[in-house]
Amino acid sequence: MRATVIHAPGDIRVENLPEPKILAPTDAIIRTVAACVCGSDLWDYRGINEVARPTPIGHEYVGVVEETCAEVKDIKPGQFVIGSFFASDNTCPICRAGYQTSCPHKEFVGGCQAEYIRIPLADGTLVALDGQPDEKFVPSLLTLSDVMGTGWYAAVAAEVKPGSTVVVVGDGAVGLSGVIAARELGAERVIAMSRHVSRQRLASEFGATDVVAERGEAGVALVKELTGGIGADSVLECVGTQESMRQAVRATRPGGNVGFVGVPHDVAIDGQELFFSHVGLRGGPAPVRHFLPDLIDRVLDGRIEPGKVFDLTLPLDEAAEGYRAMDERRAIKTLLRP
Amino acid sequence: MRATVIHAPGDIRVENLPEPKILAPTDAIIRTVAACVCGSDLWDYRGINEVARPTPIGHEYVGVVEETCAEVKDIKPGQFVIGSFFASDNTCPICRAGYQTSCPHKEFVGGCQAEYIRIPLADGTLVALDGQPDEKFVPSLLTLSDVMGTGWYAAVAAEVKPGSTVVVVGDGAVGLSGVIAARELGAERVIAMSRHVSRQRLASEFGATDVVAERGEAGVALVKELTGGIGADSVLECVGTQESMRQAVRATRPGGNVGFVGVPHDVAIDGQELFFSHVGLRGGPAPVRHFLPDLIDRVLDGRIEPGKVFDLTLPLDEAAEGYRAMDERRAIKTLLRP
Repeated sequence: MRATVIHAPGDIRVENLPEPKILAPTDAIIRTVAACVCGSDLWDYRGINEVARPTPIGHEYVGVVEETCAEVKDIKPGQFVIGSFFASDNTCPICRAGYQTSCPHKEFVGGCQAEYIRIPLADGTLVALDGQPDEKFVPSLLTLSDVMGTGWYAAVAAEVKPGSTVVVVGDGAVGLSGVIAARELGAERVIAMSRHVSRQRLASEFGATDVVAERGEAGVALVKELTGGIGADSVLECVGTQESMRQAVRATRPGGNVGFVGVPHDVAIDGQELFFSHVGLRGGPAPVRHFLPDLIDRVLDGRIEPGKVFDLTLPLDEAAEGYRAMDERRAIKTLLRP
Repeated sequence: MRATVIHAPGDIRVENLPEPKILAPTDAIIRTVAACVCGSDLWDYRGINEVARPTPIGHEYVGVVEETCAEVKDIKPGQFVIGSFFASDNTCPICRAGYQTSCPHKEFVGGCQAEYIRIPLADGTLVALDGQPDEKFVPSLLTLSDVMGTGWYAAVAAEVKPGSTVVVVGDGAVGLSGVIAARELGAERVIAMSRHVSRQRLASEFGATDVVAERGEAGVALVKELTGGIGADSVLECVGTQESMRQAVRATRPGGNVGFVGVPHDVAIDGQELFFSHVGLRGGPAPVRHFLPDLIDRVLDGRIEPGKVFDLTLPLDEAAEGYRAMDERRAIKTLLRP
């Protein structure tokens, strides 16, 4: 089968690999309908994460079930499915508490920019649609496997409520999905921090009421000005740097909350500053499995259209160009069709 | 009047100072009925905080109102009152959100180990009882001005709910009050981390179901063992060191919460560890004003008796011995009678 492999920073190739095989009785194999390139794939591409050996890449997917093994009871061949980038049993106390990405049986689902994917713990990981979706919904459904689910978790972790004032730090696909999430959860005001015109436009289309282009202390000062001097109720941190985290905490009102979903790179939080800020903090890899059923309904009902974050669609064989375009910020997010 | 003054680390003296005067139209003057020594007073006493000049000390108090100024409407001379260690207006959006200790008009109420105290923003800061309380309630009412209110905030910040499993890190008066708070908020299981027999005994009396004497990784391992391998729903961090904070985060289950009320001294929280822990974090100086009406009711109804944390009562003139006893861990907390 055709599959995307990263050989070294900047070196993405689409190659012929053996099709995945069932390895455990709880496995399923799916035929990929669509996959995509994640901002976190760019860490490898940019050499921020080490690439020790050629590695199949990609962790976002929708597809049709080809085959299931003996212990898979709920998922059936022929179903259109969406799953999380982390497999989970979905039955343990941590999964039942809604934190499937901390499931003790979790397993990363990698190598998804490929024609076929092996899904561990298929019953716990995948959610099947009733029937096949209209083609127009595929991009939005694909976002639920990571980026829209992650924006949603950021908003939930930041405790966005009806009437909230929300700030979104980061204008990548996750931040833009966070704008959608904040509005869906009832935020009255959503301030998107973005300095790129195309992303500002999409943020507004997704429901942002204000855009702040400034960063750091200047950005915080503007947020304060927009919020009666006190800061926002909820801040979604969708970047993962020391500066973005500091900006997020400082833009939050005392008693407000930061949901942080940008994987922290060399971030240390000063205990005393956090203490005196009275800001609540929760982050982590988004338990998208927890949100999938609800988010699928919102997509199929036409309430949300997160698939708009894909401003470049390419055949799988042109994956390398998809990475380049995102790396050079010519594209927000690239959808790949096997 | 007689008042306690710290001159240098280890040097506590009770001296004659002028009585406090009204300085602003929102001030009141109260005659102190009881005051006490806080664990945080020991930072000055032990030289951890600098003592630059002789300074009146103490920030916990109950008393009877002597005098109020023109703009004080609700508080009247003769009332028995309890107030927070931070004055607040109690009307701004931050106070209304329940974070009075972040009120933009907040002012520290110091020098309370004295016969009289000036209370700024009296209407926002003080809560008056109906009539004079029975003498037996005075110690418990006194704890509401900081230590019990702080333990309560720790439990609220850690989102203790009916049925929760709770860990309390720290067996000082705040941690012990946290045990009371956890039980009152419905915790089913309260694990007190304590290695001092007298404090273990009081923790059990306050409702702790388990005691863990181990600290650090050994303590975390024992908590995991007691919680089906996953950690507690809520952890109250009542110390404020790097080790106690790490211990708190690691003892919490994914999706659980740490409420931290020990003022952090040289604490840095690793962003990546917090991210992958899925633990929520909220701390700060407790907005005890927010909890006072409810906690007063619980004391006067006899539901809680946090005054038991006072295992030493001295006349104000013997304040120096009260500090020594706490410093040497001969006493948990010292009550002072002017």
